Formats: sequence, structure tokens, C-alpha cells
Amino acid sequence: MNGMNELIELVDKYLDKYMGITYPEDIFKSMKYTLSLPGKRLRPVMCLETSRLLGGDIAKTLPSACAIEMLHVQSLIHDDLPCMDNDDFRRGQPSNHKVFGEATAVLAGDALITYAIQTIIEKSEGLSDSQLVRIIHEYTKFAGAYGLIAGQVADIESEGGKLVKSPEETLDFIHLNKTAVLFRLAVRVGAIIANAGENVIEEFDNFAKKFGLAFQIYDDIMDEISSFSELGKTVGKDKLSGKLTYVSLYGLNEAKNKFNSLTRECYDIIEKYDSTVFRDILTKLSGKIGSC
Amino acid sequence: MNGMNELIELVDKYLDKYMGITYPEDIFKSMKYTLSLPGKRLRPVMCLETSRLLGGDIAKTLPSACAIEMLHVQSLIHDDLPCMDNDDFRRGQPSNHKVFGEATAVLAGDALITYAIQTIIEKSEGLSDSQLVRIIHEYTKFAGAYGLIAGQVADIESEGGKLVKSPEETLDFIHLNKTAVLFRLAVRVGAIIANAGENVIEEFDNFAKKFGLAFQIYDDIMDEISSFSELGKTVGKDKLSGKLTYVSLYGLNEAKNKFNSLTRECYDIIEKYDSTVFRDILTKLSGKIGSC
Repeated sequence: MNGMNELIELVDKYLDKYMGITYPEDIFKSMKYTLSLPGKRLRPVMCLETSRLLGGDIAKTLPSACAIEMLHVQSLIHDDLPCMDNDDFRRGQPSNHKVFGEATAVLAGDALITYAIQTIIEKSEGLSDSQLVRIIHEYTKFAGAYGLIAGQVADIESEGGKLVKSPEETLDFIHLNKTAVLFRLAVRVGAIIANAGENVIEEFDNFAKKFGLAFQIYDDIMDEISSFSELGKTVGKDKLSGKLTYVSLYGLNEAKNKFNSLTRECYDIIEKYDSTVFRDILTKLSGKIGSC
Repeated sequence: MNGMNELIELVDKYLDKYMGITYPEDIFKSMKYTLSLPGKRLRPVMCLETSRLLGGDIAKTLPSACAIEMLHVQSLIHDDLPCMDNDDFRRGQPSNHKVFGEATAVLAGDALITYAIQTIIEKSEGLSDSQLVRIIHEYTKFAGAYGLIAGQVADIESEGGKLVKSPEETLDFIHLNKTAVLFRLAVRVGAIIANAGENVIEEFDNFAKKFGLAFQIYDDIMDEISSFSELGKTVGKDKLSGKLTYVSLYGLNEAKNKFNSLTRECYDIIEKYDSTVFRDILTKLSGKIGSC
């Protein structure tokens, strides 16, 4: 059985293998740069672990798992741009546009979106065409204008104070779409590759929704209380920009309570699968909040 | 039989139909804005016409044809950004970031990439899963880091004078990848939907390669000799930025000769299909060069 660290190593190895460098080198180097920064690889790990728990094959799941990390990294590269969050650091290193320039960073992000799907098609052995179409469909729904990007735009609008819905509804929408959506994609795709039934897919989806909300509340809390060296990126920006966060809307204590109740629900859903990996992920997240 | 104008109307109608507006509205409005600017719709028209000439069904081809226009428009939105070509106008109107801001323009481009593929999957009726996988694979190969984006990056490098290959080789690479690639994608996908044999796909591909080169040389010539009102975008920028173009490398006369010989080859390849639409496209392009 693969533990958390083995799965991370596997993801790192295959991301490196999938991402070759050819002419014109700048674009491939730029894509590979942010993709190679050490990360927790939570999304691909959750995809692989879901597939394994449901009897799926790790080798068959790796291309789709790595593709989710590519989409995630794409969103980070564009998020860091001066016209977006204007962040000079990512995972403790200079962000993509600081190294390769803004134009290449924009194009590297664009390229990662199509390359993620190209990787699924070219590297997945043993998946049927109907599975491939379903997986790619999930990607486009969850990572596009109706998912991840809807969350980012609502987030930008909230910073400008342009709220169409109530602050509570807007925040839920942002958290679900900006953060939970890629965790949902990860477990859904893992379950689809394992040929799980619709009810099992929905069970994992429900887990990922709650986990995603908890994760974003965690992020909001950390931005409030952490230092640069702990996070590897600029902190305290939410407060400075008057951003709508769980902490700014409900206060730190209520944020911690909500976080704790969500992670408890996550434990409950996943308990019957007896997964060390999911338990580790939840424990690490809760541990940090518990000690702060 | 559909003529050029009927096909353009069909594309406009379906682009409008496919592109609904929902919360958060800014992202959908931004995507729809540049998508709705009146254009020649050359790529989707060539996709539809290729399919029709080879016995394909127009209704089955429309989602894929519109998806190519979405990819094209995505590249225009990102190309116009201040960090790229910094162009305030597109198709005679303010460019996307001038209307919606840079952050939304970046995200609208991102969203169009996935939405193009989502449209193919959700709107294509009567295509088999294996056709869908092949079509999507063509999209990712031609529009991504190994196609369109490789051309854009080589183009950016050439402006900075950072040439890895000779100027002639670099220019060919830029033209083939930045411009010809989406015409190739258009005719290939049209032919695949019509279930054409590989030799026919390659014949149309060869046409599109030559057409794409001719089209880019046309564009280089127009940037040199036209006015803003004729092009609907800023002109003379190539010269100012010292950009590598067919005109800057070979001179205006040699550029016209090359253009004429390529369009003649295009006529020769397509002649046997007796297509009013392809003839119109070639005649319109040649007419402008002939008269300048």
C-alpha cells in the first residue's frame, strides 16, 4: 500500500516525466518551473488514493492525477500575475512571471490547460474512449467558467466590493468554486477510473466539498496568523486588500469552529475506507489549526 | 449549398447560442464580448466547408467549428494584453482588457480554452466517443504548447532578438505554428467528422498549411501598408517593434511573390472539390494583395 509520501514521490516523478523540454524552450521551462516547485500534491494524491480505495489501478490513474496538478499550477501561475494577486513568491520561490516574464507566464498557464488534457489522452493506457470523454468532460466543467474560474471571478468582484449576492452566499460560492472544485474533480476522476457507481462518486464528491471548504477556511486563518517563512508566499494580503474571507466575515473563533466541524464530517465520511492517506491529510490540516 | 455568408451567419448564431450568461456574469460577458465582435470566422467556416465537401453533416460539425473560433478568440484576448502585444483595439472595438480589466481578460481567455472542449463534448450529437477523443486530441496538440503557443513564444523571442534558429527558420516556425496551425486544426477536424481517410485529411492539412503561410504573409504586408480603419487594429507595430516578419526579412516584393505562389498552390489543391467557399476565401485574400 502506498503511503502519503510514496504517492507524492510518484506524482513528482511522473510530472517530471510527462513534462519534456523542446523548442521553443522558454515555454516548456516556464511550465515545468512552477510544476516542479515542491508542493503537497494534495489533488493528485487524493485522486490516486480514491482510485486505489475503490479498486482502481494506480498506473491508469497517474496521467489524470498529474493533469489535475497541471490545472492547479496553471491557476497559481495566472493568480500570481501583477494584474491578479500580484504575488512575487510561490511555494517559497520567485513566482513564474518573476522568472520568465509576464508574457511567457500567461502563455505557460494557457499551455498547461491543453497539456493537461493532452496528457490524459496520450498517457492513459487501458481507459476506454467513453471513460476518457467522461474524464475530460469533468475537467472542463470543474476547471472552467462554471467551476474554478467562476470562483476566481467572484473573488475578484468581492475585492472590488461588487457583490451581487449576500456576503455569506458570495463567500460560499467563492470557496466552493475556487477551492473545493479541484478536490472534487480529483476524487471524482479517481472514482471514475475505478469504475465506481454514481452513489460512490457522490459520496467522495461530498467529502471533497467539505474538505475543500475546510481547506479554504484553513487558508484564510493561516493568512491571518502565519509568517512568510511558514507559508512560502506573501501573507496578510487578504486583510490589506479588504478581501472577503471566512475570518473577515465570521471572525477567527467562528472560522476555527467551522473548520473543526467540517474536518470531523470528513473523518466520518471517509472512516469506512480506512485510508491512512486521507487520515494523514486531515490530521496534518487539523493539527496546524489546533495548535494555533 | 451554403455560401460563405450563410456559413458565417450560422457560426455567429451558434456561438451566440452556445455562450450563455450566468453568475458571475463578468466572466461570461467578457468571453462573449470578443467572441461576438464581427469577424470573418475563417476557421469555423473552413471546418464546416471541409466537412460538407467530404460528405459530413453540418449540424454535427458546428460545435467543433465554433470551438475553434473560441480558441482563436482566446489567443486574441491574451495577445492584446499589456504584457503581450499591448493592443487597445481588436476588430475595430476596444480590446477585452480595456472593457473588462486585465484580470477578467486573463480569466476569460483561460475559460474559453476549457469551454471550447466542453462545447464539443456537450453539443456534438451523433459523434462516437472515439471521434470525440480524436477531435479533442487534435485540439490539444494544435492549440497548445506544441502548436499555437509554441508559435507565440517563438514570436516573442524573435522580438527580443533571442534567436535560437536562423531568422528564416524561426520565421517559418512562427508562421506555421502561430497562424497555420488553427487553419490546419479546422480542416482536419472537419475531415475527421466526415470520416475522411488519412490521405484526404493530409491533403486538406497541406492546403491549410499553405493557406496559413499565405495568410500570415498577407497580415505582414497589411501591417506595413494599411491604415487603422482598414484593419480595425493598430498598424505599423511590427516595424516599430523590430519584429521578424516576412516583409522585414525578405522585403515587400518578395513577400508578394511568395504570397502569390502559395495561393496558386492552394487553388491547385482545392480545385477538384469545386468549392465556392474556398474559392471565395482565396479570391478575397488575393484581391487585396493584387490591388496594393
